[in-house]
Amino acid sequence: MTNKINLYDVTLRDGSHAISHQLTISQIEHYTKAIDQTGIYAVEVGHGNGLGASSVLVGKSQLSDEVLLKTAKSNLEHTKLGIHVIPGFATIKKDIEKALSWGVDIVRVASHCTEADITERHLGYVREKGKEAYGLLMMSHMASPETLLDEAIKMQTYGAEAIIILDSAGSYLPDDVKERITLLSQNLNVPVGFHAHNNLGLGISNSLVAIEAGAQIIDGATKGFGAGAGNAQLEVLAAVLQKMNYKTNIDLYKLLDTADIVEKDFIKEPITISSLSIVSAIAGVFSGFAKHVKRVAKEFNVDPRDIFMELGRQKVVAGQEDTIIDIALKLQKRI
Amino acid sequence: MTNKINLYDVTLRDGSHAISHQLTISQIEHYTKAIDQTGIYAVEVGHGNGLGASSVLVGKSQLSDEVLLKTAKSNLEHTKLGIHVIPGFATIKKDIEKALSWGVDIVRVASHCTEADITERHLGYVREKGKEAYGLLMMSHMASPETLLDEAIKMQTYGAEAIIILDSAGSYLPDDVKERITLLSQNLNVPVGFHAHNNLGLGISNSLVAIEAGAQIIDGATKGFGAGAGNAQLEVLAAVLQKMNYKTNIDLYKLLDTADIVEKDFIKEPITISSLSIVSAIAGVFSGFAKHVKRVAKEFNVDPRDIFMELGRQKVVAGQEDTIIDIALKLQKRI
Repeated sequence: MTNKINLYDVTLRDGSHAISHQLTISQIEHYTKAIDQTGIYAVEVGHGNGLGASSVLVGKSQLSDEVLLKTAKSNLEHTKLGIHVIPGFATIKKDIEKALSWGVDIVRVASHCTEADITERHLGYVREKGKEAYGLLMMSHMASPETLLDEAIKMQTYGAEAIIILDSAGSYLPDDVKERITLLSQNLNVPVGFHAHNNLGLGISNSLVAIEAGAQIIDGATKGFGAGAGNAQLEVLAAVLQKMNYKTNIDLYKLLDTADIVEKDFIKEPITISSLSIVSAIAGVFSGFAKHVKRVAKEFNVDPRDIFMELGRQKVVAGQEDTIIDIALKLQKRI
Repeated sequence: MTNKINLYDVTLRDGSHAISHQLTISQIEHYTKAIDQTGIYAVEVGHGNGLGASSVLVGKSQLSDEVLLKTAKSNLEHTKLGIHVIPGFATIKKDIEKALSWGVDIVRVASHCTEADITERHLGYVREKGKEAYGLLMMSHMASPETLLDEAIKMQTYGAEAIIILDSAGSYLPDDVKERITLLSQNLNVPVGFHAHNNLGLGISNSLVAIEAGAQIIDGATKGFGAGAGNAQLEVLAAVLQKMNYKTNIDLYKLLDTADIVEKDFIKEPITISSLSIVSAIAGVFSGFAKHVKRVAKEFNVDPRDIFMELGRQKVVAGQEDTIIDIALKLQKRI
């Protein structure tokens, strides 16, 4: 990997969250054909929670992983095809082996920021098969910079060829990003990347800070099309990097055209920063909780913001949605 | 003015652009009642182009300045009432004298970044009447930092009690803001302020950079409700400043509630960053040109982005909309 910035497009994966995983074949065809002409390094495709995650519990995809990935691959000549893999959702035998046979180039194996251990087998398998394997640390604001580095080093030992830090709650301030990316860049032997969410309106600038601190891979989504308040808006980032004379190899007009496909074809509601997104970021809670929080708050007639702040104090992570009702009950009694 | 950050809310003025100046009495009542409880320093109300600007040419307000300002003032106890004044649109006798009689507290007198001279009489008049007078330099990216300082010093000499730098095209990178605000803060005797537009997704972070460089007044709009890609999203900025432990005196929950009024009552289309907003910022052209550019591009069957880039090369400013057709004609011949 050279010193240039690799832009990694998560629109067709993180954006799946924003439309409850209902991407259609024609949307994927249209989008991947367009992105393939832009110079974007890779495009990630799949259910919002990654390979093998489609289920009644977290949401059913309209299309199977097989259809999603084969459709994408058939339209990609220049841009690589990536997938998001959370061990637990995706298994090696049932999912990853097949995904590689469908033409996936990059497998990004993700864990909660303190649980890199669970990625060992998956990363090892992908390397063994000769594909690109990245390690992803989710909800990374919940670990100290030193712990993050320890976990990143584990992933590197397991064979990860890049480590990506995810700001899953969109709660980082620029200095938080600077501290973490600097530490990782200086102490890892593989490239470091950053994945922003825009809850505090800092998606673009946190990405810039990451680059200045040494990151070489930056995630983004066209029109910011991702979970909650969305990701760093990819075409904006490309324009800013171009204005700053960074080497990205992006054809800006073609990327703008691709972004306009999202606006015309995918978006039911444009991605904006809602009041609840701001509060969830301040609380440091994954924005995937928002719809549950809103529902429970209404049912118990309490302020959804108070629920978020208490979830933050309890340091909940995805999977602990039951906590929401306990908190709502306590808040109701207090009133 | 103390060392704390004064947040200045332009929603009911810059946001007028986004709805073609069609604010209603009940919207203003509802909004000003709410903002008055938030700790926001001042709220600006009026036609997008300021006092006296309503006309067939730039767009007719639904309400007269008198109704706009009297309605706002009657709901404000704590938050000051501000107006935007461009000499040429607003005259002292016909407009400003009356506006002061309707209870306006702050008059912000604006000129193109190299034409501070035109603000002398207006600033002088406001000071003479004992109201707060600020000087605003619009399209400030078109002047060198040194020229900006010269113009700001003129305004200070005319009596301006604060100087605000406007990034009217939304084209500043963080370092541009840092350089200009630092120079002004170090060389003026009055507070310096910054007014961001979000075309490059940097509205919040450029505001933070401005504060770090010495700015004490920061403009913003709830839900980013302003011209083009909108302003720095005010409630996001307040949340970020709170997270950074700045003193703003803002009740965040109340400000979030106020922002939600905008979403529910005002917005036809949410403010997002369109592809054309990005190009206009890269070109350094005021986003007010966008609708004319789109219309002409369609009529002449040329790429609106090429028009913007050429407008940028020609360094056009508001009022030179005729240039658009000349450029479209030339582009058409080239095809």
